Amino acid sequence: MRRVAVIIGAGPGTGAAIAQRFSATHSILVLSRSLPGSLPKLNLDTPSDRLLAATSDGSNESLKKAFELLSAHWPNSTIDVGVYNTNFSFSPGPFLERTEDQLRTNLESGIVSAFNFSQHIIPHFLANEPNETTRARGTLIFTGATMALRGGAPFSTMAPAMFARRALTQSLAREFGPKGVHVVHAIIDGKIAPPKDSGREMPSEAIDSNDIAQNYLDLVNQRATAWTQELDIRPSDESW
Amino acid sequence: MRRVAVIIGAGPGTGAAIAQRFSATHSILVLSRSLPGSLPKLNLDTPSDRLLAATSDGSNESLKKAFELLSAHWPNSTIDVGVYNTNFSFSPGPFLERTEDQLRTNLESGIVSAFNFSQHIIPHFLANEPNETTRARGTLIFTGATMALRGGAPFSTMAPAMFARRALTQSLAREFGPKGVHVVHAIIDGKIAPPKDSGREMPSEAIDSNDIAQNYLDLVNQRATAWTQELDIRPSDESW
Amino acid sequence: MRRVAVIIGAGPGTGAAIAQRFSATHSILVLSRSLPGSLPKLNLDTPSDRLLAATSDGSNESLKKAFELLSAHWPNSTIDVGVYNTNFSFSPGPFLERTEDQLRTNLESGIVSAFNFSQHIIPHFLANEPNETTRARGTLIFTGATMALRGGAPFSTMAPAMFARRALTQSLAREFGPKGVHVVHAIIDGKIAPPKDSGREMPSEAIDSNDIAQNYLDLVNQRATAWTQELDIRPSDESW
Amino acid sequence: MRRVAVIIGAGPGTGAAIAQRFSATHSILVLSRSLPGSLPKLNLDTPSDRLLAATSDGSNESLKKAFELLSAHWPNSTIDVGVYNTNFSFSPGPFLERTEDQLRTNLESGIVSAFNFSQHIIPHFLANEPNETTRARGTLIFTGATMALRGGAPFSTMAPAMFARRALTQSLAREFGPKGVHVVHAIIDGKIAPPKDSGREMPSEAIDSNDIAQNYLDLVNQRATAWTQELDIRPSDESW
Repeated sequence: MRRVAVIIGAGPGTGAAIAQRFSATHSILVLSRSLPGSLPKLNLDTPSDRLLAATSDGSNESLKKAFELLSAHWPNSTIDVGVYNTNFSFSPGPFLERTEDQLRTNLESGIVSAFNFSQHIIPHFLANEPNETTRARGTLIFTGATMALRGGAPFSTMAPAMFARRALTQSLAREFGPKGVHVVHAIIDGKIAPPKDSGREMPSEAIDSNDIAQNYLDLVNQRATAWTQELDIRPSDESW
Repeated sequence: MRRVAVIIGAGPGTGAAIAQRFSATHSILVLSRSLPGSLPKLNLDTPSDRLLAATSDGSNESLKKAFELLSAHWPNSTIDVGVYNTNFSFSPGPFLERTEDQLRTNLESGIVSAFNFSQHIIPHFLANEPNETTRARGTLIFTGATMALRGGAPFSTMAPAMFARRALTQSLAREFGPKGVHVVHAIIDGKIAPPKDSGREMPSEAIDSNDIAQNYLDLVNQRATAWTQELDIRPSDESW
Repeated sequence: MRRVAVIIGAGPGTGAAIAQRFSATHSILVLSRSLPGSLPKLNLDTPSDRLLAATSDGSNESLKKAFELLSAHWPNSTIDVGVYNTNFSFSPGPFLERTEDQLRTNLESGIVSAFNFSQHIIPHFLANEPNETTRARGTLIFTGATMALRGGAPFSTMAPAMFARRALTQSLAREFGPKGVHVVHAIIDGKIAPPKDSGREMPSEAIDSNDIAQNYLDLVNQRATAWTQELDIRPSDESW
Repeated sequence: MRRVAVIIGAGPGTGAAIAQRFSATHSILVLSRSLPGSLPKLNLDTPSDRLLAATSDGSNESLKKAFELLSAHWPNSTIDVGVYNTNFSFSPGPFLERTEDQLRTNLESGIVSAFNFSQHIIPHFLANEPNETTRARGTLIFTGATMALRGGAPFSTMAPAMFARRALTQSLAREFGPKGVHVVHAIIDGKIAPPKDSGREMPSEAIDSNDIAQNYLDLVNQRATAWTQELDIRPSDESW
């Protein structure tokens, strides 16, 4: 049985690392605004018969198409992993110089698209038999950030969106945990290192995307008697 | 010098109680979607020369008009209190039966309008001299709810909006506190009793709107060496 | 009917300011290790027939004696306010240079004495009729600190004690709120200014003890439909 | 090079499961009040040359002896894992019927012994070279509970101790993370199933100790660019 992981927000950094890590056990559908055109930039060595890319801006319409494509391409597969990894638009600054549009842009990727993505993937999870090892029907991981916990002064257009995302993960975990769906909010606290082939230097205190990916894999492998809903992920030398 | 308090989300319950309480010291501008038509329902005994009502749905355009009206009506006044009290639309239920529209409706009143309201009122605060007693240039109070702290299972369209509102208040408090603006997030935990003349019975364990209003007045009166950013407000017999 | 407020941890700073503020409505019992000898240092102008001082180190034995003294001195009075304001011993530093004794010292004042004080005063509260205005049978306020929420690197002997105190206040609020006892945890975030006659300069960004006292009085005056369990108190220009 | 994991609070449930799981890569020192006598009850199949048991009540004296025993028994070994897993004494009930002694008992195991254990094991960690794979010098995991986050009404003698333990883990993580020591607080939310050979039935919604142990192993294996300081561990059907 083909297992499928769907990763939305699949850029060359964390998204690609997660796709790469899950491709050992899963076929992968990667989604972003720039895919499938930008697929070469992800540098994935996943065999082509286990990799699919489609465009999604997080709208219901685009997600509907993407899941239809998936079902047509890999019929009878088991979709049992979803990763919501879209970035907010980084727009810090003095509140009175921020705009409603900047806030709205971040609410789209922060919460509205996350809501839509969840509505599309959870029904697939619920249709699965529990995994023989973990007893999960599916795992849905949301990438969060420290600004999901603390609204810093310059982040008035960003923190609200990340707080909102966190709220959604709690509602989903409480509703769907007892139904076999594992919902996780991963608080990434620190800078993520640039991809190694980017030519940019990796600062010593940055998070390696591959290590985030390994953490996500560990979360998928948690057995259902001992699930984590929220965890922080932080470099050892980060001040917090 | 005329002091003005602007209250948005001024329905017959908490909003009216707050307006009533502040009218001892302030002229009042009340804003809501149904005002000024619904003004009689607020049952305020504020003298008419100290009361103004205008329509606002929280959009920038409507707020711009409302503040222009205020400035024209009460020129040279000191706007030094703002209360953001709009309700979310109560839409609990199973996640897969919720809609993107329900979420969006709550994001509008939960965070977008709060952002807009803050952008319109804070410049007025910053233009004030510090209050002689409190040393504040202005106080901005946001009504929050327990679901700003905890995303319960049925609240996937509501908790994200209230988490987001809380984030905004933290960003604003951190940026504008040192500039003399007091920003508060009040977590109302419990049912608010219906207005006494509503004909509905007041349950013993409900919050009296007048007591919320008194708390808000106490917050405005806090001196700037000892400000509260967040507090919970809860009936004594509420289970939490 | 004589109303009595009991303040433990009554030094020349916050404790004295609280005693002073409550003496408008209450007779005051102040307790500390150095009282009654150090009473002159508190600079209270409370009439002597409304002021009582006794020694307590927070032990059950000392508290038992103090409450017996109170009952003998002011029979038939209504004890309806308690303030737990003892300081921790300030002992920051590298963990491996801290000692078990430093930790134990802070656990005594941080939590064990707070537990004891609560066991002595709450039965008095429960024996009261509800206050006619607030409907409270008594109010118990604990002074907390930011390190009740966040364990900073140098605070390994202090943060555990303040976290523990916060936990106690939550348990007490949940058990005794429905019985008419108002339990508050006040998170003081910032330096408290030295008493004005101390000769030390008051930094602009420090908390004025009198403002803490006013906040505590506001909390006592909250009506039981709208009680606060936790609030932060912070100077406007504190960075947090 | 022999790697050693030290587990304190090693009873037949979680402690034994953790010891068992780590014995694939580590020699194990188990500590508890009833060890070494109770060792057979742990049912470990660790080879005897990789298993050591000693008595400790968490006092500095007992810990000093235990670490001396370890150094004598396995000289030149690398102590790089510590697990603090001691239970609190379960003593819920009405506050006015609780005793100072019950509180003190829980403070001993909740925080004082945790402080002592940390002071004994961290210097061993700091003397290690960073692990080649993870870059950690050592990992210190504390078992926590939901009552570390929320003081429930009946838990006035227990929640303070567990809040305090959490505070300690934060101080240690902030001080020693940059020095290569990974400090984790694991919030176990739910009942832990009895050992399978206990004759007691395992309820469906209980946590399997082996799954906690696997989570702890995953935490030890986290690479230092992506460490977790706090996570919850909860059965899928737990209500929270």
